[in-house]
Amino acid sequence: MSTNPASKNRQGTTRRRLLLSGGAAGVGVLGTLSAQQLFAPSSAAETRTPLNGEEYIPFFGDHQAGITTAPQAHALFVALTLAPDTDGAGLKRMLRLISDDAARLTQGQPALADTEPELAQNPARLTITFGVSRKAVQLAGKQPPKWLQELPAFSIDRLEKRYSGGDIFIQFASDDPLIVAHASRMILKDARRFASISWSQRGFRRAHGSVAAGTTMRNLFGQVDGTSNPQPSDPDFDALVWEPQGWLRNGSSVVVRKISMDLDKWDELDRSGREQSVGRFLSNGAPLTSSPNDPAAEFEVPNFETTTAGGLKVIPEFSHVARSRSAVPGERILRRSYNYDDAATGSEVSNAGLIFISYQADVDRQYVPLQRRLDELDLLNQWTTPIGSAVFAILPGCHEGGFVGETLFG
Amino acid sequence: MSTNPASKNRQGTTRRRLLLSGGAAGVGVLGTLSAQQLFAPSSAAETRTPLNGEEYIPFFGDHQAGITTAPQAHALFVALTLAPDTDGAGLKRMLRLISDDAARLTQGQPALADTEPELAQNPARLTITFGVSRKAVQLAGKQPPKWLQELPAFSIDRLEKRYSGGDIFIQFASDDPLIVAHASRMILKDARRFASISWSQRGFRRAHGSVAAGTTMRNLFGQVDGTSNPQPSDPDFDALVWEPQGWLRNGSSVVVRKISMDLDKWDELDRSGREQSVGRFLSNGAPLTSSPNDPAAEFEVPNFETTTAGGLKVIPEFSHVARSRSAVPGERILRRSYNYDDAATGSEVSNAGLIFISYQADVDRQYVPLQRRLDELDLLNQWTTPIGSAVFAILPGCHEGGFVGETLFG
Ligand code: HEM
Ligand code: HEM
Repeated sequence: MSTNPASKNRQGTTRRRLLLSGGAAGVGVLGTLSAQQLFAPSSAAETRTPLNGEEYIPFFGDHQAGITTAPQAHALFVALTLAPDTDGAGLKRMLRLISDDAARLTQGQPALADTEPELAQNPARLTITFGVSRKAVQLAGKQPPKWLQELPAFSIDRLEKRYSGGDIFIQFASDDPLIVAHASRMILKDARRFASISWSQRGFRRAHGSVAAGTTMRNLFGQVDGTSNPQPSDPDFDALVWEPQGWLRNGSSVVVRKISMDLDKWDELDRSGREQSVGRFLSNGAPLTSSPNDPAAEFEVPNFETTTAGGLKVIPEFSHVARSRSAVPGERILRRSYNYDDAATGSEVSNAGLIFISYQADVDRQYVPLQRRLDELDLLNQWTTPIGSAVFAILPGCHEGGFVGETLFG
Repeated sequence: MSTNPASKNRQGTTRRRLLLSGGAAGVGVLGTLSAQQLFAPSSAAETRTPLNGEEYIPFFGDHQAGITTAPQAHALFVALTLAPDTDGAGLKRMLRLISDDAARLTQGQPALADTEPELAQNPARLTITFGVSRKAVQLAGKQPPKWLQELPAFSIDRLEKRYSGGDIFIQFASDDPLIVAHASRMILKDARRFASISWSQRGFRRAHGSVAAGTTMRNLFGQVDGTSNPQPSDPDFDALVWEPQGWLRNGSSVVVRKISMDLDKWDELDRSGREQSVGRFLSNGAPLTSSPNDPAAEFEVPNFETTTAGGLKVIPEFSHVARSRSAVPGERILRRSYNYDDAATGSEVSNAGLIFISYQADVDRQYVPLQRRLDELDLLNQWTTPIGSAVFAILPGCHEGGFVGETLFG
């Protein structure tokens, strides 16, 4: 596979590669690509600061990349429907092909028979993450986890088929939109003998270099979104995110919810009403029981007991934060959502929302109770509507010589 | 208007502003935005390197920004249809409103009554550029230029109404997709009393920081696209781009062509066939009469006389470069195109192409003869199909206290 040393590093870390420092081996790999790839992108000094485009996320590892990876600016989520004549052997062939493509593309190398090899260069932290449905697991002859099915129906749902379901899930994420376009084309070309597109959704966060690295994203309501999220350093992180056993060991699950946000209606609320609906300040994302002026207050623990002089809870009981924070530590999920802003038409001013993405070890244990609580009561429901929904098992990672999905066929 | 010194600079240059160095005046402007805007985005050292997000393109100037501005990574092109009851006075009110919004948003300030002021921060070189149709000019009681009309029909055209025409043109361009989403929403909210969306098209180039600054973009065929373009330092640049007299003095024109690119068919061609169809190497964009290995060769002049041993032209006469390069120096145009990659469905693997954008002083004199030549013969036509088309007059710039469009009502 790739001779790039970057791919041998610990998952989730990023390695920079200096194009000009490759020596004979590096030149060999790049040789077929003609001179362009050998040019130093800027002043050719070997000591220059690497560009963000030259940041590579290792593909190989126990877990797939793109889950604990610091979220990239652009994501494309695609679900495929398997063709009626794709059997278990076909599924295996397809997964081997597209896993191989991903191993190359994430390291800035062209896919096999890549027709636009120059568009693979400088992948800007590209990750490609694969998942499968119950049907795909059964096709491979393995036992699907109990939770691998459509979510139960919720009263807030207004789901549309064109944004829901599917057999194969692929998350493309990079800081560069051209990289996402090229990588998705290469992989979908290899997949098309076996499957067709069920849906695709495109999302974004702030660009690399727009705000300081590590800044929590804002959604299109203007809210700081993603503050309270399990961290890899948490002692229970692995238990929250990774499946502990069986063919899915070191895999996970993803819930994809396309949630439309009514920005017009939201704009009618005053600022304090908006802050009450979530339980956090818009300025810095701090809980309403902390300071709106101190940037560090974003990460302070909300105090759900504090009351106003009038005896009301400072963080209302119907607020999104009060409702979504579970008393059970094992019920947490890892959120990795993206904004979407699809083309508005006619008198519409926007057609926007959140591609809500969460990773968790067990959908039934972690996601469903949380979504039930929010379905019962959550002031935010007044301005948000789930219009798409899908659940997939996220496959374990693989090591050099293997492919993502291999444990389905072991 | 804005008290930001950046806005007083020469158009087209970029000024960095350190958020913490504002002093009393700066704090006054930001005061209503609560603490968030006053935080230093990173380690708070006043001497840190500014983020790309903190780059501002001046709004005020003789010309509008967004034409000679180094192309940003993201663009949204929107055309509006004026409401039947919008008269000249209404048009004026609308232009004043949205020009004021643009003056603020491009400087990182919220629009008036901005409901998500935090989403205006760090505009990452945001520019907002306005244009008008023949109908809008007539509504204002002014004489439209002769060229301000639909392009003549070309044999290659397969135009669709949903990508064509419109009364008001707005180009949003920034290195950050969230900034484009917020700025477009603010402006479309203010415009909706007067007009509705006719079409909107979203385009991208490589992200800031992915490749060295100043690298010519690549389109989704993998070609280096934009090499041979008039430069502001060219002695005839002003004559090529800006209208010299009348109410449109210092304005321009834009041609917007949505051109679908058949990537599947393109992939069937071998590399040398692809290079012949354009007349340039894919590796570095150099003419076929220069070296494919020398990065500087991109800008060498093509030699259309050189022949092969077999007596054939090295740059074929039917190639895109041979056909698009005019012998008449005054027939050049300023191209500023973007890739698009819309959602593919079913067995499609992509729905992609180029949002071709060109600025020129006179559409009839510069664009039409060129497009006629390409319509007659251009090998590239085998893989490209124009599916949308629109022409607008690009309004002159304005100075503090004025608004873009004011000369329509002088
Ligand atoms: C468009 C829909 C949604 C919006 C705009 C939204 C927004 C937010 C915001 C602003 C926060 C506070 C900051 C943070 O900790 O991230 C938050 C927290 C949270 N949200 Fe959502 N959310 C949405 C949907 C959902 C859904 C569907 C779920 C899961 C079913 C969910 C689960 C959570 C959780 C678990 C937290 C953290 C609670 C805590 O521990 O403090 N959210 N959300
Ligand atoms: C999808 C459609 C198109 C593609 C893929 C394309 C691609 C290219 C490429 C690769 C070049 C060579 C590099 C450069 O100088 O930029 C080029 C040059 C050029 N193209 Fe296009 N082009 C397209 C449509 C058009 C259209 C519609 C026009 C105008 C009617 C046009 C006008 C030009 C001009 C004037 C040049 C520079 C010629 C020279 O001075 O050497 N192109 N184009």
